[in-house]
Amino acid sequence: MLAGVSTVPAPVLVLLSAPTENEPLDGTGFAPADPTVPHLDVNDLGAVRGDGIFETIGVMDGRPQALDAHLLRFARSAAQLDLPAPRLDVWRAAVLAAIETARTAGTLGPEVGVKTVLTRGVEGTGVATGWVRLAPAPDLDASRRDGVRVLTLDRGFPADVAQRAPWLLQGAKTLSYAVNMAALRYAHGHDADDVIFVSADGAVLEGPTANVLARIGDEVVTPPTDQAILPGTTQARAFDFFAGRGLRTVERRLEAAELAGADGLWLTSSVRLVVPVRILDGVACAVDVELTRGLLAHLRAVTD
Amino acid sequence: MLAGVSTVPAPVLVLLSAPTENEPLDGTGFAPADPTVPHLDVNDLGAVRGDGIFETIGVMDGRPQALDAHLLRFARSAAQLDLPAPRLDVWRAAVLAAIETARTAGTLGPEVGVKTVLTRGVEGTGVATGWVRLAPAPDLDASRRDGVRVLTLDRGFPADVAQRAPWLLQGAKTLSYAVNMAALRYAHGHDADDVIFVSADGAVLEGPTANVLARIGDEVVTPPTDQAILPGTTQARAFDFFAGRGLRTVERRLEAAELAGADGLWLTSSVRLVVPVRILDGVACAVDVELTRGLLAHLRAVTD
Repeated sequence: MLAGVSTVPAPVLVLLSAPTENEPLDGTGFAPADPTVPHLDVNDLGAVRGDGIFETIGVMDGRPQALDAHLLRFARSAAQLDLPAPRLDVWRAAVLAAIETARTAGTLGPEVGVKTVLTRGVEGTGVATGWVRLAPAPDLDASRRDGVRVLTLDRGFPADVAQRAPWLLQGAKTLSYAVNMAALRYAHGHDADDVIFVSADGAVLEGPTANVLARIGDEVVTPPTDQAILPGTTQARAFDFFAGRGLRTVERRLEAAELAGADGLWLTSSVRLVVPVRILDGVACAVDVELTRGLLAHLRAVTD
Repeated sequence: MLAGVSTVPAPVLVLLSAPTENEPLDGTGFAPADPTVPHLDVNDLGAVRGDGIFETIGVMDGRPQALDAHLLRFARSAAQLDLPAPRLDVWRAAVLAAIETARTAGTLGPEVGVKTVLTRGVEGTGVATGWVRLAPAPDLDASRRDGVRVLTLDRGFPADVAQRAPWLLQGAKTLSYAVNMAALRYAHGHDADDVIFVSADGAVLEGPTANVLARIGDEVVTPPTDQAILPGTTQARAFDFFAGRGLRTVERRLEAAELAGADGLWLTSSVRLVVPVRILDGVACAVDVELTRGLLAHLRAVTD
């Protein structure tokens, strides 16, 4: 690759030497690293077993959004996988350092994503692997404005599986995302852009990388987090917006059959923020352009 | 680490430059690499999405077992994940080269495992990542002789999920093994060594890293491979053994309720070969020591 030819800003990488309470803390516990060379052992359990966790944090105009909420969810995912407790202060500092590095280099765009990854480390060592990687967000203007085409796909599990089968890790944000990626590929092969997973017993769950919100009359509904789904950091802030518009916000079981009659349907996530669903299973949906624009502006501007 | 102090033979690593039909083949398509330094990008989709596949091949007295069967299953897994077709001739040569390297170094023990891993590669490049890694097998004498304690755990899915929901990737051997690892940890925390997954509708499926065989009277039964499980390479060879002993071998739906009354229960896998189940859900099982010993000797000796 020729230096200086690429128009995409280089990613920023920070490696953690003390990602969890198990590794001794020496200095800050992190250091910047060259993102263009390999840093992972081929026997890292993150790579060979998908045995680790992650978060993706949206950074808007240089400010990480919902950083506390992301770090808390990161710690909850670690507990679900019996990983040692992440040193959240080190992770926080590493995220801020990655942003600062990009800012100093002049490569910090208005919207970037920062991924935090913690793996169980190289098999047999008992030493966890952790890194933070900042990269530009893809161009999201079209999907935010025009909406996306969505397929509902069976997730195979009943909605209550998380409580009775904790080993299935539903509700943990693990590196084992092959099914999520396969569902997206299936959608792309069937005239759709994204997916809403439905439980075996007909409840709306979540998208492969997003939460689902449906407006039905004067209510905005999202599925409860005891239903094998991730608690959404962006969804929580979207609820603030809708409440401010006088809509009632409700966490309840949402039947897949309710989606077709919804007055608005959105996918929320940390970097994409929000996209309206314009076609569901091949049928056009109600899209409230004004409400969606307001929601996006709220999500884009909020600092917490 | 002090050189020469370790008593465990060093692993052997071979990297593939042409793991699939997508990468141009230049020379052999593989080369040995230093296993003690990092070779993976932190943004490899194998590491951040568990988006890839693997096989583990047992190598007994220097001979890889069921290499053809493993490579065919590898190609089937690739197809299920919409990965480009692996160059099986390159993978085969790379496996043999890893064995030869260990032999030449004098580090090839009587029982080793070779893992083949193919990932979707670094995000955005479209170039797959592939490697072969040879490492000694753990000490298996005790579990092979004395058997293992097993828990049955709910896999959450109905037994027929693979046919109607291909995006769930059941039956593909993916790198997204976090659930398999979590199930094993759950077992270890509950006085057990291993797990047999059961479908939501009560059918025996497979172990996290093994197939299940049950002897019931003069039949040996294993669940059919259309039931969201991996076709077992070792299981197939175990069936040859049982047929030679005059038992009928049957692939059929096996109800979890049948396990308690079985006259013998085994887990088969490529490196461990076979272990008898001696305790199932806290209750002692019938263990046929002589039959197990014969089966182990057959699996250990067979060359194909």
